Amino acid sequence: MPCSSSNLGGKLLPAVTFELLKESTESKARLGKLHTPHGTVDTPVFMPVGTQATVKAMSPRELEEIGARIILSNTYHLYLRPGHTLIQEAGGLHKFMAWSGPILTDSGGFQVFSLGDLRKITEEGVEFRSHIDGSKHLFTPEKVMEIEMALGPDIAMVFDECVSYPTTYEYAKEAMERTTRWAERCLKAHHKEDQALFAIVQGSSFRELREKSARDLVSLDFPGYAVGGLSVGEPKPLMYEVLDYTVPLLPLHKPRYLMGVGSPDCVIEGVLRGIDMFDCVLPTRIARNGTVFTKLGKLVIRNAKYKNDFTPLDHHCDCYTCRTFTRAYIRHLFNVNEILGLRLTTIHNLHFLLELMRNIRKAIAADSLSEFREEFYRYYEPEQFGQNKN
Amino acid sequence: MPCSSSNLGGKLLPAVTFELLKESTESKARLGKLHTPHGTVDTPVFMPVGTQATVKAMSPRELEEIGARIILSNTYHLYLRPGHTLIQEAGGLHKFMAWSGPILTDSGGFQVFSLGDLRKITEEGVEFRSHIDGSKHLFTPEKVMEIEMALGPDIAMVFDECVSYPTTYEYAKEAMERTTRWAERCLKAHHKEDQALFAIVQGSSFRELREKSARDLVSLDFPGYAVGGLSVGEPKPLMYEVLDYTVPLLPLHKPRYLMGVGSPDCVIEGVLRGIDMFDCVLPTRIARNGTVFTKLGKLVIRNAKYKNDFTPLDHHCDCYTCRTFTRAYIRHLFNVNEILGLRLTTIHNLHFLLELMRNIRKAIAADSLSEFREEFYRYYEPEQFGQNKN
Ligand SMILES: [Zn+2]
Ligand SMILES: [Zn+2]
Repeated sequence: MPCSSSNLGGKLLPAVTFELLKESTESKARLGKLHTPHGTVDTPVFMPVGTQATVKAMSPRELEEIGARIILSNTYHLYLRPGHTLIQEAGGLHKFMAWSGPILTDSGGFQVFSLGDLRKITEEGVEFRSHIDGSKHLFTPEKVMEIEMALGPDIAMVFDECVSYPTTYEYAKEAMERTTRWAERCLKAHHKEDQALFAIVQGSSFRELREKSARDLVSLDFPGYAVGGLSVGEPKPLMYEVLDYTVPLLPLHKPRYLMGVGSPDCVIEGVLRGIDMFDCVLPTRIARNGTVFTKLGKLVIRNAKYKNDFTPLDHHCDCYTCRTFTRAYIRHLFNVNEILGLRLTTIHNLHFLLELMRNIRKAIAADSLSEFREEFYRYYEPEQFGQNKN
Repeated sequence: MPCSSSNLGGKLLPAVTFELLKESTESKARLGKLHTPHGTVDTPVFMPVGTQATVKAMSPRELEEIGARIILSNTYHLYLRPGHTLIQEAGGLHKFMAWSGPILTDSGGFQVFSLGDLRKITEEGVEFRSHIDGSKHLFTPEKVMEIEMALGPDIAMVFDECVSYPTTYEYAKEAMERTTRWAERCLKAHHKEDQALFAIVQGSSFRELREKSARDLVSLDFPGYAVGGLSVGEPKPLMYEVLDYTVPLLPLHKPRYLMGVGSPDCVIEGVLRGIDMFDCVLPTRIARNGTVFTKLGKLVIRNAKYKNDFTPLDHHCDCYTCRTFTRAYIRHLFNVNEILGLRLTTIHNLHFLLELMRNIRKAIAADSLSEFREEFYRYYEPEQFGQNKN
């Protein structure tokens, strides 16, 4: 397990390396190991989201307990509060939030572009007003690299322009080409040996643009690639189609990350199309509203029918919540607005997704992912959750 | 460790027994063991408050980890939501909330009397309107016993009339006498062998009334006695004075419980006056506002001076929070309204009080409680917290 980028026979080893262990014979699914300065992660992997340097309602040791290996945090939010220089002063994000495993930070691209009227895009970067106090800020590729280097995650993402769905071909093209130019500037500005910088393929749902984006970014030789601009409102079949033609253009021996996707069915579909890494606020966000994943689909705990249901959230789950508490009790906690309620549903939902990933990895190893998928859909009703970003 | 009331040579042993281990030579402080159907508790003890069948923001295993041995819950709140019959159906409060240690429930007296215009007192009981939906209810001593027997805690409290401070002698007398009559009715209505029923001494700050209340209740031979109607707005010296003349009237070999008191200084003063049990929402309530106990007094974590303070909340504390996180991080969590923030301060505050109790017990064992008190006040500034009930 590499502890940082290391000098091997004079040649500097990258901070993050990907070891391809197995390619499925029946689909594009693959098994791998992502080696980072803070440990190795088995892929395909789901990364819980800790937007503000905390995975909402969870403690670091609870994350460890459910088997989370790598988490995500957010450049835009951390830049605004508490500020990247404070986190640098604290010894970096790992130390600040007491998470000793790998961390990936997104670049804030998605957040600043979501600000709508509060931001203005130029070739230089994006000028925006804080959603908190209206203060004015400028994110350029160089500035974002400065922030991510200060934060110190194992994996930093390039500053990209994420367009919403639907959009015109012309605008998608412009944004995609700018994303590529910005990726080059990020690469140039990035100089932190124990941190990997991943590129982001854009191009909305236009095949030609996705292909150009992938080709151009691959030629820049990043250590990893994300597919961005998906799960932004398009129908799921369209997302799958984009993955079908985009993922094969990415290097076989580098990690592939599908940004902002984390509903159980989408994760399975992404893995089948060759994705190694996922993140999404969905499991934690719906948990705080009292909605949980179960093997049979979603369950809304406030529902009156659970009033005196003294069984666990999910009979097939062995998380702390399901081992210890009943639906009736968790429903009571939500009814009286007690914090323990959303803590327990959050633990369960994250455990559900991480357990799903463990089972997906086993199925790939056993060459039985197609069967696994079939079995999964026999019980699980898809299309039940909206798409969620942070 | 008795597992329930047991038949010893034909004689039924009470559900809860108190073993007096040591009386201090220098004060009225004492060391004891409270044996209950759910285990034995070393006294003096602080009982964290779980008003709605959950100690706010804590999980049962976190409570165990910080060394909580007995917790308190609330008859009034549980009666309204989720309802005592539901909890009975769940197998009782222990099972419902997954807490395997002893539980004490207060009787709801304090809560219904706090309702002000929403309640009407007669000799029969108290008619009140729910603070949630305005629905009408009647609490009589018999009804409260029915509820507490259904909830199934190890210790139930009698239904008492708690008067606020200040009050007239006449009203304090009337309420105290009614409390005694209700205590008799509670005793008559209570028939649950594995549950102890404690009486509550009232009488405001009138010595004559306190003495009469204590004498009359002691003659009824309850297995334990509480001092109620304190920490309701009176100055601390007055509370100490009431304890000075009330506690000596209580039986030496039965547990004595000071209701609603839990600031560090008041706990020490209570122990010195012969109190064995305490409860208070103060540590958890102030924690949720970002105020914590430290050896040096209170600390308000939102204060700007902690912005880049990378030391623990309390240098002398070894709770999970202080072992793992910095003031700067916890301040950030409060600033951005993250749940982990108040989880961490709650863990610390409860740990602080439970650790204080452990040290108090050690000091009594070593006959050095006076020194301990002196040393405590050398650092700790008292009178910093308002008095708090639930
Ligand atoms: Zn579960
Ligand atoms: Zn602490």
